[in-house]
Amino acid sequence: MKPVCLVIGAGAGIGGTVGKRFAQEGYHAVLCRRSDVAGLEKLVDEIAEVGGSASGFIMNAVDDDAIETRVSAIEADIGPIDVAVYNLGAQIGNRSLAETEPRAFEMGWRLGTFGLFRLARAVTPMMEKRGHGTIIVTSATAAVRGNAGQHSHTAAMGGRRLLCQSLNAEFSPKGIHVAHVVVDGAVEAPDTLGKMLGPERFRQLKETRGAADGLMLPEKIADTYWYLANQHRSVWTHEMDLRSWSDLPWWNH
Amino acid sequence: MKPVCLVIGAGAGIGGTVGKRFAQEGYHAVLCRRSDVAGLEKLVDEIAEVGGSASGFIMNAVDDDAIETRVSAIEADIGPIDVAVYNLGAQIGNRSLAETEPRAFEMGWRLGTFGLFRLARAVTPMMEKRGHGTIIVTSATAAVRGNAGQHSHTAAMGGRRLLCQSLNAEFSPKGIHVAHVVVDGAVEAPDTLGKMLGPERFRQLKETRGAADGLMLPEKIADTYWYLANQHRSVWTHEMDLRSWSDLPWWNH
Amino acid sequence: MKPVCLVIGAGAGIGGTVGKRFAQEGYHAVLCRRSDVAGLEKLVDEIAEVGGSASGFIMNAVDDDAIETRVSAIEADIGPIDVAVYNLGAQIGNRSLAETEPRAFEMGWRLGTFGLFRLARAVTPMMEKRGHGTIIVTSATAAVRGNAGQHSHTAAMGGRRLLCQSLNAEFSPKGIHVAHVVVDGAVEAPDTLGKMLGPERFRQLKETRGAADGLMLPEKIADTYWYLANQHRSVWTHEMDLRSWSDLPWWNH
Amino acid sequence: MKPVCLVIGAGAGIGGTVGKRFAQEGYHAVLCRRSDVAGLEKLVDEIAEVGGSASGFIMNAVDDDAIETRVSAIEADIGPIDVAVYNLGAQIGNRSLAETEPRAFEMGWRLGTFGLFRLARAVTPMMEKRGHGTIIVTSATAAVRGNAGQHSHTAAMGGRRLLCQSLNAEFSPKGIHVAHVVVDGAVEAPDTLGKMLGPERFRQLKETRGAADGLMLPEKIADTYWYLANQHRSVWTHEMDLRSWSDLPWWNH
Repeated sequence: MKPVCLVIGAGAGIGGTVGKRFAQEGYHAVLCRRSDVAGLEKLVDEIAEVGGSASGFIMNAVDDDAIETRVSAIEADIGPIDVAVYNLGAQIGNRSLAETEPRAFEMGWRLGTFGLFRLARAVTPMMEKRGHGTIIVTSATAAVRGNAGQHSHTAAMGGRRLLCQSLNAEFSPKGIHVAHVVVDGAVEAPDTLGKMLGPERFRQLKETRGAADGLMLPEKIADTYWYLANQHRSVWTHEMDLRSWSDLPWWNH
Repeated sequence: MKPVCLVIGAGAGIGGTVGKRFAQEGYHAVLCRRSDVAGLEKLVDEIAEVGGSASGFIMNAVDDDAIETRVSAIEADIGPIDVAVYNLGAQIGNRSLAETEPRAFEMGWRLGTFGLFRLARAVTPMMEKRGHGTIIVTSATAAVRGNAGQHSHTAAMGGRRLLCQSLNAEFSPKGIHVAHVVVDGAVEAPDTLGKMLGPERFRQLKETRGAADGLMLPEKIADTYWYLANQHRSVWTHEMDLRSWSDLPWWNH
Repeated sequence: MKPVCLVIGAGAGIGGTVGKRFAQEGYHAVLCRRSDVAGLEKLVDEIAEVGGSASGFIMNAVDDDAIETRVSAIEADIGPIDVAVYNLGAQIGNRSLAETEPRAFEMGWRLGTFGLFRLARAVTPMMEKRGHGTIIVTSATAAVRGNAGQHSHTAAMGGRRLLCQSLNAEFSPKGIHVAHVVVDGAVEAPDTLGKMLGPERFRQLKETRGAADGLMLPEKIADTYWYLANQHRSVWTHEMDLRSWSDLPWWNH
Repeated sequence: MKPVCLVIGAGAGIGGTVGKRFAQEGYHAVLCRRSDVAGLEKLVDEIAEVGGSASGFIMNAVDDDAIETRVSAIEADIGPIDVAVYNLGAQIGNRSLAETEPRAFEMGWRLGTFGLFRLARAVTPMMEKRGHGTIIVTSATAAVRGNAGQHSHTAAMGGRRLLCQSLNAEFSPKGIHVAHVVVDGAVEAPDTLGKMLGPERFRQLKETRGAADGLMLPEKIADTYWYLANQHRSVWTHEMDLRSWSDLPWWNH
């Protein structure tokens, strides 16, 4: 029975690509996303075509018990979750405080913070019994500083980041590696950035950033996740930042 | 008509003492707390006895519209809210992840992050019209690092801290000062720390810390808040830490 | 005998203004600067004219024993140093790495880091004997992040910031308050910023920032230093940031 | 001609092990250390024995021109420096401020900050011409917070960290990857930790930390450096932390 790599938030960008990478390395990838059955099936098929093993589920992570039920079912029917990747974003674009409805702010928290809490609560008991496991959390610049217009996103991501620290503090001594990855730049992700900008502006941005690698390439981010999941436990990383060589870190102007 | 200093979370520790201080300096203090009518009336009376002006309201900040309605009523009936102090804590003691119920985690967020968002949304429109205002947020070490057992608290406070940054980024250019105060140590607060420890351990802690000032004195924290509310706008502070001389900062061991 | 407030780096901006403020509050101000006897005498005279007490010394802080000898002489001849303000900057403008000569990099360290170490080594033994004292360190955005072209400055200030932490860790329990002030913006300082920009660009910058308070006013920074020196020891601040309301914090874009 | 991996500070711990790893992957390792010719020759021989290629040089990095001359000679005689690892420590144990001689403080800076500045100044012109290169900097917890007794070390490492940021800001857009690695824990390093503790206490520490991997294993740190040197430039990491699963991060208590 293959170990499972569970990806919550498996679109065509980071999430799906990470799933593919782990499948290619011998994991069974379980891909969960909120919508787009066709896109999900495409991902699963692409994995199968190259000899990998994957399952896909449409799941709204904010629904009651959605994450918890999925985790139980995977452990019962598919295999032990060895790696869990929390890849749900909570970016809603820039909105003034007046334009940020309480409902939107709460949704940011449900996706950005609470879902990770629920995932960790669901997977850690089994990981702890097995004595090992990895939880990798995709995060954003908004997790380390709050810009104007980012009220919902930054509150959610700031909570996410510190939750990763408290999870790490409790579970690292039990053999569970929790890693918080600060994705500090634009990702070459047609499902998110591409849709936000529209095809023309997305193409322009890619050209502006220069070369084929001015945006962060999802396959290369997947390399990072694979590396993190394989770090020897004498040298675990809790937090690292990623950005393109042509981009400025968030702390520089 | 006196300017109003609104305190959300006005117990016998930081909140009530800050209200007293602002009342003493000429503000009308509006004190809100969730329970203990007698304690609230005592605070209001103590302010009146020394010639100050105050009102007290029992209010559960997590109730729908509780904060919003209170803010409107104050602006209509009492005076312009010039200073708003968000002083609700969300500490529930150390609990493992398994022991941290989703409901408790959500309550942490409602008190720790969402309530501040709602307060800011309620008071900033009027402050912006008047061209000035101050929002002071009491925060905790858990806002800057997540310890084991602090899942609910640190996620809530981490969100609170970054929300303060995004609020500051939007409202500072509009003349509204947002300050995030990291209370990095034990406060001489009978209502919270005293109750958590019980009278005997509270007394012992105070003795251990040495002298009369080993715990943080609420009146001295109130000095800080008064100072912040009076900083000239050419030199606004967004974040500062506070702790007793006899205590170690969170970053030291 | 008046307590002494020693200012290392007392030009017409922050340093001299802080000296004036402490003199006005009853301290004897000892003002040290590297050059400009006329400017120094003017500062001392202005303090005397309003009934204050001050002494001025031309001193190159990087000279061997300059700081140490001055501290001894003050303690012997003038009075006990109760407050020491380290206000030497190390900004040399933007230079590429190739243009940053090793000699300039070393000078940055001598002014930015080593001088503070020497001052602390000179004043803490007496402060420790007396059981109290305050060391306030003017710092810069370069102490918390390193921009391109700032190699010398940021290395010096990054060292300065962490030295403040280790000094605080050793001396806070001995009653000595060490505060690190991140001056995160342009100061209305004719001796430094004014000279760097030239009179015309300096005037333009002031106009652009809007109003009379778009640049940080030295008298208002002096208010902060006075506040810090008077914080009750149950609520000492180690680090705080300052910037104008119309400016963006370093972490925002 | 093989690309060169230059290691400044190549003892039996991180430095030598990183050299071995890069040699094994096809680099020519150039190992520099201050003393112990026998130890250096042993490292070079061990690399040769398994078919790798290496050179060793005794070099005191703080000597005038030592680094600069070595870099020129390598580029002229051995090959292009593709990866430069700055691995000099500056830990001198805990010393009070009074016990920290100015000479020791200066030596901390020469090893901790200035040597990296000089190395970067020497290697970046060639790397820039070639359009690529990697500089990996071993760093310590003292780079992010200053503990009591660590005055020299923390000032040096705090400067080192921010210098890495300014180097990254200038050179990342030129294709040179600068990575700052926070080694946040005890390393299984007989040459440094082992000598500091003595054989008996070193053995005890290893046992206390549990298992064979309670201390950070140099070969596993070398994995990290190899990973960093091979990160695709669309996803460069500037800073990451490392510690053993059984250890607490510096921010936790």
